This record gives sequence, structure tokens and C-alpha cells, in this order.
Amino acid sequence: MKGHVAYQQEIPFRNLGGGVQRRVLSYNEELMTVEVAFEAGAVGAVHTHPHTQCTYVLAGRFSYSVEDKSVTLGPGDSIVVPSGLPHGTTCLEEGVLLDVFTPMRKDFI
Amino acid sequence: MKGHVAYQQEIPFRNLGGGVQRRVLSYNEELMTVEVAFEAGAVGAVHTHPHTQCTYVLAGRFSYSVEDKSVTLGPGDSIVVPSGLPHGTTCLEEGVLLDVFTPMRKDFI
Repeated sequence: MKGHVAYQQEIPFRNLGGGVQRRVLSYNEELMTVEVAFEAGAVGAVHTHPHTQCTYVLAGRFSYSVEDKSVTLGPGDSIVVPSGLPHGTTCLEEGVLLDVFTPMRKDFI
Repeated sequence: MKGHVAYQQEIPFRNLGGGVQRRVLSYNEELMTVEVAFEAGAVGAVHTHPHTQCTYVLAGRFSYSVEDKSVTLGPGDSIVVPSGLPHGTTCLEEGVLLDVFTPMRKDFI
């Protein structure tokens, strides 16, 4: 098949430390789908990248910042972060984020 | 906040008929996040568009085709469909797909 299929259960999480794990799911040059699992209290430190990103909360509750503003996101909530803006998150209740990037994150594979 | 936040519970589904409903969540010019809910047996007819798409199964089970090949996807499974390739789906067990498009789908708003 020309589309890239990723069966979730075949892909183990990679432990990033600090209560954060990541697994890269389906991708091509234009899009990359990534799950990031957080323990309560774990932090995704503020960072920037040229990729535009959307984050969809699969489970849990998160404080999510873009520049100097923060929102609280729960299951089903989502945010699109424009290219180059500083963003980060703190996990309030254990959960999983689905991050989708355009273009794909070459640094993740 | 410069990111676009979408709180899921504030956004109603739009009934597309045939057991399919859609709601557009967060987006900007580069990315658009969309939930599509299917009753069992409902069909997302084969179609094409220039946008690159990833589909992540939030719930349910789906037969998903790209060109003349099909796969069965369950919760957490995902697929990236390159620009311009014919693709479609048949819902095997009631569920919801998360579709992310790059660039955004102007025809959806």
C-alpha cells in the first residue's frame, strides 16, 4: 500500500526520562503522527521548532503553553501551534498526547 | 494565545448523512484537525484531494483503502495518505477517526 500504515501495538514506546515516553506512528515527508505519554507532573519543556504542530489530547489533562499564555486541555481538546512559537506542557493527570507535525520530524527517526 | 485551541465539547458534530458526522477542531493554514464519527456500516466513499492526510483511529474498527489495497485499522492504528491518492473507508465497528490534513481543508469551513 502506498499509504504508510502504523499498527499501534507493534510500536513500543521509547522512554525519554522524566515520566515521558514517545512512539512515532505513521508518517511521510509531509506529516508525522506521534504519541507522547506523560505521568502526572511530567513536563514537556518549552521548546521551538520550524514544524507546524497540532496536539490532540487522547487521555489525561494538561496545562499547555504557547509563548506566555497557557490553557488546560482534556480528552478531545486540541491545539495547533504555528511554526517557530515556543510551546510546552505540564501533565496534570496522567495521559497521552497525539502530536502531528508538518513536515515530518527527521530528528525523531 | 497565538495557537488555535479547540475545546471538543464546544463543537457539535455536523451530520453528513449515511451514518457519518464530522466536526472541525483546531486548525491554521498548515494543519487542520477533524473528527469523523461513523456508525457501523457507514462508508467514507473513495475520493481524492491534494492535501496530505493522516488518519488515527480514536475508536472503532475500519476497513481503509488506498488505491486498490485495503487494511483493517483499530484503535490507535494510523495511516498517512499521500497527496492525490484515492482513499476511502468502511466502518466495521462504530467509531471515530481523527483526520489531520496539510494544508488545511478550506472546503470544510
